[in-house]
Amino acid sequence: MSHQSYGVHSEVGRLNRVLVCRPGLSHERLTPSNSDALLFDDVLWVQNAQRDHADFVQHLRDRGVEVVELHDLLAETLAVPGARDWLLDRKIVANEVGGGLVADTRAFLDSLDHSALTEYLIGGLSTRDLPAEFRSPEVALVRESAGMTEYLMPPLPNTIYTRDTTCWIYGGLTLNPLFWPARHAETMLMKAIYDFHPDYTSSTVWWGDPEQDWGQATLEGGDVMPVGNGVVLIGMSERTSRQAITAVASRLFEQGAANRVVVAGMPKLRAAMHLDTVFTFADRDLVTYYPDIVDGIHTFSLRPADGGGIEVAEERASFIDVVAESLGLAKLRAVEPGGGWYAGERQQWDSGNNAVAVEPGVVFTYDRNTYTNELLRNAGVEVIEIVGAELGRGRGGGHCMTCPISRDAVEY
Amino acid sequence: MSHQSYGVHSEVGRLNRVLVCRPGLSHERLTPSNSDALLFDDVLWVQNAQRDHADFVQHLRDRGVEVVELHDLLAETLAVPGARDWLLDRKIVANEVGGGLVADTRAFLDSLDHSALTEYLIGGLSTRDLPAEFRSPEVALVRESAGMTEYLMPPLPNTIYTRDTTCWIYGGLTLNPLFWPARHAETMLMKAIYDFHPDYTSSTVWWGDPEQDWGQATLEGGDVMPVGNGVVLIGMSERTSRQAITAVASRLFEQGAANRVVVAGMPKLRAAMHLDTVFTFADRDLVTYYPDIVDGIHTFSLRPADGGGIEVAEERASFIDVVAESLGLAKLRAVEPGGGWYAGERQQWDSGNNAVAVEPGVVFTYDRNTYTNELLRNAGVEVIEIVGAELGRGRGGGHCMTCPISRDAVEY
Amino acid sequence: MSHQSYGVHSEVGRLNRVLVCRPGLSHERLTPSNSDALLFDDVLWVQNAQRDHADFVQHLRDRGVEVVELHDLLAETLAVPGARDWLLDRKIVANEVGGGLVADTRAFLDSLDHSALTEYLIGGLSTRDLPAEFRSPEVALVRESAGMTEYLMPPLPNTIYTRDTTCWIYGGLTLNPLFWPARHAETMLMKAIYDFHPDYTSSTVWWGDPEQDWGQATLEGGDVMPVGNGVVLIGMSERTSRQAITAVASRLFEQGAANRVVVAGMPKLRAAMHLDTVFTFADRDLVTYYPDIVDGIHTFSLRPADGGGIEVAEERASFIDVVAESLGLAKLRAVEPGGGWYAGERQQWDSGNNAVAVEPGVVFTYDRNTYTNELLRNAGVEVIEIVGAELGRGRGGGHCMTCPISRDAVEY
Amino acid sequence: MSHQSYGVHSEVGRLNRVLVCRPGLSHERLTPSNSDALLFDDVLWVQNAQRDHADFVQHLRDRGVEVVELHDLLAETLAVPGARDWLLDRKIVANEVGGGLVADTRAFLDSLDHSALTEYLIGGLSTRDLPAEFRSPEVALVRESAGMTEYLMPPLPNTIYTRDTTCWIYGGLTLNPLFWPARHAETMLMKAIYDFHPDYTSSTVWWGDPEQDWGQATLEGGDVMPVGNGVVLIGMSERTSRQAITAVASRLFEQGAANRVVVAGMPKLRAAMHLDTVFTFADRDLVTYYPDIVDGIHTFSLRPADGGGIEVAEERASFIDVVAESLGLAKLRAVEPGGGWYAGERQQWDSGNNAVAVEPGVVFTYDRNTYTNELLRNAGVEVIEIVGAELGRGRGGGHCMTCPISRDAVEY
Repeated sequence: MSHQSYGVHSEVGRLNRVLVCRPGLSHERLTPSNSDALLFDDVLWVQNAQRDHADFVQHLRDRGVEVVELHDLLAETLAVPGARDWLLDRKIVANEVGGGLVADTRAFLDSLDHSALTEYLIGGLSTRDLPAEFRSPEVALVRESAGMTEYLMPPLPNTIYTRDTTCWIYGGLTLNPLFWPARHAETMLMKAIYDFHPDYTSSTVWWGDPEQDWGQATLEGGDVMPVGNGVVLIGMSERTSRQAITAVASRLFEQGAANRVVVAGMPKLRAAMHLDTVFTFADRDLVTYYPDIVDGIHTFSLRPADGGGIEVAEERASFIDVVAESLGLAKLRAVEPGGGWYAGERQQWDSGNNAVAVEPGVVFTYDRNTYTNELLRNAGVEVIEIVGAELGRGRGGGHCMTCPISRDAVEY
Repeated sequence: MSHQSYGVHSEVGRLNRVLVCRPGLSHERLTPSNSDALLFDDVLWVQNAQRDHADFVQHLRDRGVEVVELHDLLAETLAVPGARDWLLDRKIVANEVGGGLVADTRAFLDSLDHSALTEYLIGGLSTRDLPAEFRSPEVALVRESAGMTEYLMPPLPNTIYTRDTTCWIYGGLTLNPLFWPARHAETMLMKAIYDFHPDYTSSTVWWGDPEQDWGQATLEGGDVMPVGNGVVLIGMSERTSRQAITAVASRLFEQGAANRVVVAGMPKLRAAMHLDTVFTFADRDLVTYYPDIVDGIHTFSLRPADGGGIEVAEERASFIDVVAESLGLAKLRAVEPGGGWYAGERQQWDSGNNAVAVEPGVVFTYDRNTYTNELLRNAGVEVIEIVGAELGRGRGGGHCMTCPISRDAVEY
Repeated sequence: MSHQSYGVHSEVGRLNRVLVCRPGLSHERLTPSNSDALLFDDVLWVQNAQRDHADFVQHLRDRGVEVVELHDLLAETLAVPGARDWLLDRKIVANEVGGGLVADTRAFLDSLDHSALTEYLIGGLSTRDLPAEFRSPEVALVRESAGMTEYLMPPLPNTIYTRDTTCWIYGGLTLNPLFWPARHAETMLMKAIYDFHPDYTSSTVWWGDPEQDWGQATLEGGDVMPVGNGVVLIGMSERTSRQAITAVASRLFEQGAANRVVVAGMPKLRAAMHLDTVFTFADRDLVTYYPDIVDGIHTFSLRPADGGGIEVAEERASFIDVVAESLGLAKLRAVEPGGGWYAGERQQWDSGNNAVAVEPGVVFTYDRNTYTNELLRNAGVEVIEIVGAELGRGRGGGHCMTCPISRDAVEY
Repeated sequence: MSHQSYGVHSEVGRLNRVLVCRPGLSHERLTPSNSDALLFDDVLWVQNAQRDHADFVQHLRDRGVEVVELHDLLAETLAVPGARDWLLDRKIVANEVGGGLVADTRAFLDSLDHSALTEYLIGGLSTRDLPAEFRSPEVALVRESAGMTEYLMPPLPNTIYTRDTTCWIYGGLTLNPLFWPARHAETMLMKAIYDFHPDYTSSTVWWGDPEQDWGQATLEGGDVMPVGNGVVLIGMSERTSRQAITAVASRLFEQGAANRVVVAGMPKLRAAMHLDTVFTFADRDLVTYYPDIVDGIHTFSLRPADGGGIEVAEERASFIDVVAESLGLAKLRAVEPGGGWYAGERQQWDSGNNAVAVEPGVVFTYDRNTYTNELLRNAGVEVIEIVGAELGRGRGGGHCMTCPISRDAVEY
């Protein structure tokens, strides 16, 4: 498949190519002390998480999806002339690594092959990883440092949620400025890939550049859904700001890439991290959603204004009804988490609403959401289960762990 | 006094000129919901905080100190041709204000006089402050936004701690990249002043620029003490990173501005926010300190290396003994918070160790630290009290609320 | 005044006698480390808190209120034959003091006069307070203990909120089982007073006894308002449970002391600690309230059922309208916190709705709630201000700090 | 086996009989909102937790251990004449269930068979569980209640940690007053069993009775280890107080059941919940321990004093050396969590030090602690693995989930 054809034209059309990232070294760095700062609720058993992730990938491939893995993609990128230096010149600088440590750190990294370097780029580099010959006396300062400054390169465990860092919206993509400092470094890795890897260099970037400062404009892909019919849903949440939403909408309208952005103004609750934690598509006209949050969504529509810019309209109907109307559907079928009062809250927490489709009516979800999965099956959906015991501990499911690069449209 | 003579050459020499910032609009924005994000432990009674701050300023003036107030200074700066546009061009941009709101927001701010604009630059601008004629429909989006993105310009209540944003180290200053996002916008205001205000334009800036990204290099003035004898003490804390310390040390050594940086590796505890919350000078050879934290400091000395760069040496002696030795003193007299077990912990919390000197042996502290104040007096120090009931609620005292611009050296 | 006439017959009728408790030793025990466990948001400057409390008491006396102070009352009680032993026999037991420490602790306390003993009963007893001759080797164990078990008798800083521990409801009182373990020991002190002090021994106790286990039944006086007309308002909150409310209602109905309990089902938010933090009376038909919480109250009426027991009716009208109706008023005038969006939330936090009346239309509130106070004055209320800088740090105002023992009815 | 022979005489001798409790209804009540209050860090997939627990039990049985399950034991107990009424008379009272709900709740429970009643006694009873005919109007009040008062009987998910509620110390047991209110109701169920079940009625109870108030004296079995040689180790922790330790020590000395209690004064950190989270025995002279905590233990020895009472001695040697000496061993072999810096902290968190032995040198641990398990195996220990993905989420491992009722001594 040629990259000219990349693009994501729906949430449930046939998934052709997808980016994932396997658990690894960064997750071995997670401890009860640092997991909060790294946005994980608990440590995970990395070996089992890797096994479960590999199994998920295999099932995607069995369904005909071309699965690209971030470590592999980054290692291939590093092999492209110029790429490796471009990336290390930006990462191994005094402001990140610390004075007196740049030369030795760079020398150590330069001694590694592409694959070993990739491990540290994603997994983080501690002074403990430096062989003795690369340890300058400044290392003593590092050991006394607090929090993440104890790393020469920070671990990036949230890369397993490839959905957030970049997102394809119809024929182009965004390189997202992420909300939490713990994730800022992810986007530079993706820029290296889109700037150097031959499969991706001619992609269109709508918006975003990790070499610029975006201020209050933060965007995470878990809030972005190019549902088709020229419509994009975007959650305005803790992590995706109105500054980013209006900027992206303007760009899409200017380029003729979309004609309406439906903004889901999320209630100000931590449980509503991203739109896809409470609302995802399972079929052309079927969604799974968590009513406690979704019923409180305040909806707006952004459309191109005459003479440029955007026009903002506050919607009166419920979010689900606005989405249906925007797609030209009379209504959306909507499945709540099953199992009653307690089980509903439990399953939303366990990413029960975080389904990802490989084609209309065929979704991946965690095994542990037994009630929701049963209701989806009763609604005619084929549900393929991912073992979630370890992977779910960062509060993300199948939707979060996949970044579609090529997905077909569906008819509305 | 001409600015050529600006410079801070000790912690206790005669204080000639100092920058402060009175409480105001930003503190009226503090609520129980947002105070954590804005780094305040509690809301304050703004009117009384203003009264107590004015009283503090009056006492400084009575002692012959030239006191410069940030609102006044900024308003004067805005009156300099070019300054106002320079600053608004950088602040009223889509990434901060949000798409569709730039023109109206700028138009409103352009309608204000320098003094009213200054109030909003420091106090923050809410959509509620916009008169009807400046409200575009995008305002509806702002109201649904979470956290600080509900502001068009964020409130900056921590400006009352002028110590942190810039710091003079001997004959030049730093424009600091601050640790918490809630304070990032402060430094740009200071850059406008140092770039445009005639009293300050010829100052030497050692390091820092709010228009650049400093990565992990963060510095706050509460950690920086140019104690004299070519020595600078810098706390390596939650907020001041080794990346910044080594960068600043290199610059100071290159310029011949200092010949030794003593790094105080603070224990990784929240109570040890800045070095000056646990250790300040009250006289040439007298400090007040909080042993629970200071006894755990791990000390390093940075010195210019032969052939450029810095040389790191781990110290064996206690922090207080290293400081004494660096100043050529046989020993430092050291006053702990008084009053016994409970009172000590209470007084450190209430900024009991956060004294600021106007000359050797004359300090300002909060009235509420009665035991510590008595011990300082017993040690021969003249203690002038600041009413701390409101001002202390952001966890900063006299040292935090003052940014010396000109202070004499003392003999060692 | 004879105790036969004790009783509280309204929220705003003439206040004849009231119990307060001055700040003291227990507040000197508060530190940043233990304040959470002791339910305080911050440490306080005890000396100033005492001054402000004394001022409050003086103003109450100036208005003709007979003010009883808890330390004084307890010391007088200890002087009654039998009382001292009764109380120490219950407090200085192995389960509280620890094995091997009972005899020495009791011996030390027995060596004190009534007044000194009272200080420790309320202020707490630390092993540091024991003179050398009373220190057994078990003291070493105490020093290693965590949290409150480091005390031989716990400090009781919340006694300044006398409102909660006991409450008079018309002609009798309750000895309340309090919600948080940090306050459990308060009620036993009150039982000693009501069992031994000649002014109080013939009082009628409707419900409660600190020598029994009340399970899930917890009641705090800040939730209880005997408003008159046979009606009692009770907040069902974090701290006052349905188990207690139904028990108290049954007792009041059986005794003919009340004919209706209006239950305010508080939203499940920490800000709604007690009903009196969001709703108090300032005049016969005038309340001050915080709409963000009060508008969310779910109201029930409990009435005596035919044949015994209680009858529960869910109310449809708003809480304020139900209260008005229960008093036979067409409507209640209701004053919100003034000053707009931010100031409202700030003032509720600063106990702005926590007014206490000395007669109809004359209330005490904190000085810092300037907007609310002005609105009350505009509504014709005389507002007498209490200095709140220190006293307010435990999140309680004038209503919390007063336990009316005798208050007249008002006409409805 | 007759109950006369019950008793626990070591930590590693042959395990003859043990009490466990399978996950169930109470865990289905866990949600992200209530899990903190119920002391769980996360929700669990109950079905899989049950499977993994059943597997653990099967492996215990395969090793010849007689495993008693709490639901079974309680259901058998309820069948004993008088037991059912005894228990319900104590639990279904107005202070717990709420006024007006006692009769209906009791009627509903009386309609259930022993097994169904057992489910609710452990799993909790919600008003949602009441059939329509048992719902009085007071149910409306329950629905508005906050926190645990929304239950008629609270769910008891921590019963799976049977270790804590009762503990056998040599020839008798204690009925423990537990620290957190969320667990208080557990001990009454155990009292019913020891008072009525024919297998247990003649057991000796050293200390504790859930029908009495124990004040500050709280004890949890995770802190108690009857290691043999007349010695008992007890952790003095957040949950086990000096008041309880001295009381239990006195009773054991009086009865001649032990001659020394070694108190482990735990550092005041949340990670050190119980002694058995950082230190357990794997063989006669082999322990697994977490040095970050154990190296900070302050050790005391309690011994019978001449003339009654206890004698307290502060130890100078390290905790592990004191334990060795108390057992007459030259030294203890000690295995730390393996895998280096990060893995160590991760594995302690995942109950890596929480091994339970079935005989000397044969232990059960969680599968996820791969490094520690390997080190134990290298030390000659046979390690049988429990699947910990779900069971570990309440922060307890094999030691916590087992309450030995009969265990042989080992020779020292």
